[in-house]
Amino acid sequence: MPHFSHTLREQRRLWRLLGELAAGYWEHAAADRTPVVERRGRRAAEPLPLRPRSAAAALRQAARYLGRNACHLASPRYYGLMNPKPALAGVLGDALASVLNPQLAVEAHASGATALEREALGWFLAALGWRRGQGQFTSGGSEANLVALKVALNHRLPGVARHGLRGLRGQPVFYVSEESHHSLEKFADLLGLGRDAVRWIPTDGEFAMRPDLLAAAIRRDRRAGRLPFAVVGTFGTTSSGAVDPIAKLAALCRRERLWLHVDGAYGGSLILAPRFRRLWGALGRADSLTLDPHKWLAMPFPLGVVLVRDPRAAAAPFRVQAAYVPRGKQRVESYQLGVQWSRRFLGLKLWLAGQVYGRRAYERHFAKQMRLADYFRARLAARPAFATVSESPLPITCFTWLERPRPARRKIPVEELTRFERQMNLALAEEMVRRGWAWISATRLRPEGSGSGAPLRGPTVMRMMVINYETRERHLLRLVRDLDRLAADPALRRRAARSG
Amino acid sequence: MPHFSHTLREQRRLWRLLGELAAGYWEHAAADRTPVVERRGRRAAEPLPLRPRSAAAALRQAARYLGRNACHLASPRYYGLMNPKPALAGVLGDALASVLNPQLAVEAHASGATALEREALGWFLAALGWRRGQGQFTSGGSEANLVALKVALNHRLPGVARHGLRGLRGQPVFYVSEESHHSLEKFADLLGLGRDAVRWIPTDGEFAMRPDLLAAAIRRDRRAGRLPFAVVGTFGTTSSGAVDPIAKLAALCRRERLWLHVDGAYGGSLILAPRFRRLWGALGRADSLTLDPHKWLAMPFPLGVVLVRDPRAAAAPFRVQAAYVPRGKQRVESYQLGVQWSRRFLGLKLWLAGQVYGRRAYERHFAKQMRLADYFRARLAARPAFATVSESPLPITCFTWLERPRPARRKIPVEELTRFERQMNLALAEEMVRRGWAWISATRLRPEGSGSGAPLRGPTVMRMMVINYETRERHLLRLVRDLDRLAADPALRRRAARSG
Repeated sequence: MPHFSHTLREQRRLWRLLGELAAGYWEHAAADRTPVVERRGRRAAEPLPLRPRSAAAALRQAARYLGRNACHLASPRYYGLMNPKPALAGVLGDALASVLNPQLAVEAHASGATALEREALGWFLAALGWRRGQGQFTSGGSEANLVALKVALNHRLPGVARHGLRGLRGQPVFYVSEESHHSLEKFADLLGLGRDAVRWIPTDGEFAMRPDLLAAAIRRDRRAGRLPFAVVGTFGTTSSGAVDPIAKLAALCRRERLWLHVDGAYGGSLILAPRFRRLWGALGRADSLTLDPHKWLAMPFPLGVVLVRDPRAAAAPFRVQAAYVPRGKQRVESYQLGVQWSRRFLGLKLWLAGQVYGRRAYERHFAKQMRLADYFRARLAARPAFATVSESPLPITCFTWLERPRPARRKIPVEELTRFERQMNLALAEEMVRRGWAWISATRLRPEGSGSGAPLRGPTVMRMMVINYETRERHLLRLVRDLDRLAADPALRRRAARSG
Repeated sequence: MPHFSHTLREQRRLWRLLGELAAGYWEHAAADRTPVVERRGRRAAEPLPLRPRSAAAALRQAARYLGRNACHLASPRYYGLMNPKPALAGVLGDALASVLNPQLAVEAHASGATALEREALGWFLAALGWRRGQGQFTSGGSEANLVALKVALNHRLPGVARHGLRGLRGQPVFYVSEESHHSLEKFADLLGLGRDAVRWIPTDGEFAMRPDLLAAAIRRDRRAGRLPFAVVGTFGTTSSGAVDPIAKLAALCRRERLWLHVDGAYGGSLILAPRFRRLWGALGRADSLTLDPHKWLAMPFPLGVVLVRDPRAAAAPFRVQAAYVPRGKQRVESYQLGVQWSRRFLGLKLWLAGQVYGRRAYERHFAKQMRLADYFRARLAARPAFATVSESPLPITCFTWLERPRPARRKIPVEELTRFERQMNLALAEEMVRRGWAWISATRLRPEGSGSGAPLRGPTVMRMMVINYETRERHLLRLVRDLDRLAADPALRRRAARSG
């Protein structure tokens, strides 16, 4: 028996064991457990073992260890970053992709896999009306944003491809809101533009980019001889779920001949729901769009998507030819559309989940989570000690504890927060997690039009989002009650006061 | 029941079904079937279904469709690109990662997952003697090479981070061999250097980079005011498995104060085997190294690794701070080490496979595949109609059909091939695949020191590699016989003659 081979009988036994561990974890462990990071002592790093051991024992050990030292995203009380409990059909699709292990660099090597991926990408392209558009699965929203920025850069300034940025007559710059994802700053560096090439545009009272300040910044840069090439709008920021005014940005970009990319890593998945078109309809006017079905579509990591309206622009910057690659009939191969070459069959999980649940389930999923966010905001506002700070149309809420009630104000501007309120917000978020009652976090939001640009500025608020598809009203009611109870705890108040 | 939820009973049933499909595919379908891309008509792209359907039926449909329209990498007669039949422990670990779905951007959110990843990365770092080095899992060798190039660029030319390439006093350039991976050309563009910044150094009779020509190219660039910053050596090129002279490159890079990155995506995994240290020992003298355990370590896609000897250099280019990210005790978080932010628990599959098989199994695996390559080369050389063209120390062989035998020559230089021999090589590779006898490919290799630089140059040869861990001598014997039989077929000869 070769060294990595298993008998058919053992294969079956191991798959059964995995199924038991998986089903058991979701049904009991993750649901009963609080979504806390338990940390039962750190594991001392071990060398690669010399000899083999029982596969079943190793699998059990991994599942036990990881079950104890994890943040249980599968808990309905995880109101966290954009990390879902994955839908089972997605997990099964992902596992089947591992078994078949096709290589998606070129179509000729994986014809069926390529066809199913194209079909799933077609769902998004059709929703946007980009029938000739080009889509690609990526390792996540970061890679998708990177690819889109590069497509924009080379499309607007084509000389870059051969001669590089030093061959241009000026410094290219691009525009993002102060609440945009900070991967964009990494990528300004990675693309050779330098971090100074990111223009951080201040936001309004709902933490969305201000088009007037954007227009002014573009004018300033042009006068200074710089080369504006793109605007990146966000459809659902990480901190507050803010939605930039996409229609206005699109109009401005058309006038200014700039590329409009939208980072819809979280919120953009909404395009699968025609009934919410009033929220996302303007996305079709962008030039490119990032989606992360591993966020709102409840797929296991990773499943990023980059969609580009103009297929020639999409294919330009990554075009290379290799001697050993079988050439198919495809004009553009997968490896010519992004950072990756050998690539996992990422799209199968989405294709399978789409078959199993259907579009209606996604519409109900979005609607339910938005309804739950409204419910949470209303319950919170009904308590004198709390108020919301942001109310995105998406189910992300930033909120604050109140030192003294502001009568009849459900939502208050972030600049009104006192120092003690900010300290209490951080203490409350940390204590909720420490006690294992729920996972919420603290973040910082800048006051309207602050223009600071730098990250980590602005008052601290609490942040929660509905992300688990099994979260219900009763979980949220308990969250509000727990927050109220903790806020009344004199020990916590003393600790918060000291922490400043 | 929420829209994506399944009863415990159904969860179990679906996992059992997946296990049956997976075990059945490996045991029977992939083994009995030829590794051919069957293409029973293209699937018409379907819209996202409106309504849900049976998960079991959809899973069966996907498995059946993909089983029919695929290149079966799991066949022992797949002598293809670097795509393995994955080891079961890797597949199970990958599936468990999907179930738990931890988010690896920051340690505080996934303490156990981070610990196991660090442990597995430690196996490689320890082998290299880079005890303080920094490792990161990536979406593959491409991303790993991109990260390493950027680390090199910012380390050698630190002003780049803030002010970009236009702030430098000259044009940065880097050096690769003509047989290097073409993703490096994509990345010269992506990094803003431009494709002209890639210096393609000619190769020797075994298709390895020539250090004398490298040194001359560096001198020329310095005289012209350009800024050499890195050399990329390859440990196992895709076309022929060529190994660049790493020790010589390291000495040259030290003298010239250049960063030495080694693309060991395929061959670098050999560092897990102390008994082959004579082959890979010089890798410890590089500054950074790319590995793809999804190649020679038989992991399912994707599992790339980038290792950097100097941890400060590794962390410099990707450092950003976000307001909403919980800060752990880690000095450097995963999202600060590369392109990705939200990241899949990539390392579990490797950790689990390491436990299940142990280091000895990897040593036996490498040894066996190298022995099989020798066996194939010897069997081939024993037939008058064939000769090898390259004989890498790694189990990749390029070879040719011979119009007239060259007596007593097991290996011949690529420039000796006649036009008809090149045409026959392409025809033979294609016909083998078309008949479903085995998957081999054609590639092009440049004559020694040709200096052309451009891809797709050089005579066409046949290429095969031993990559499936279940391939045995009898499979290779059959391959040689099949080649001999096909080559004698007058119809094939006529077709090859016409194809020129």
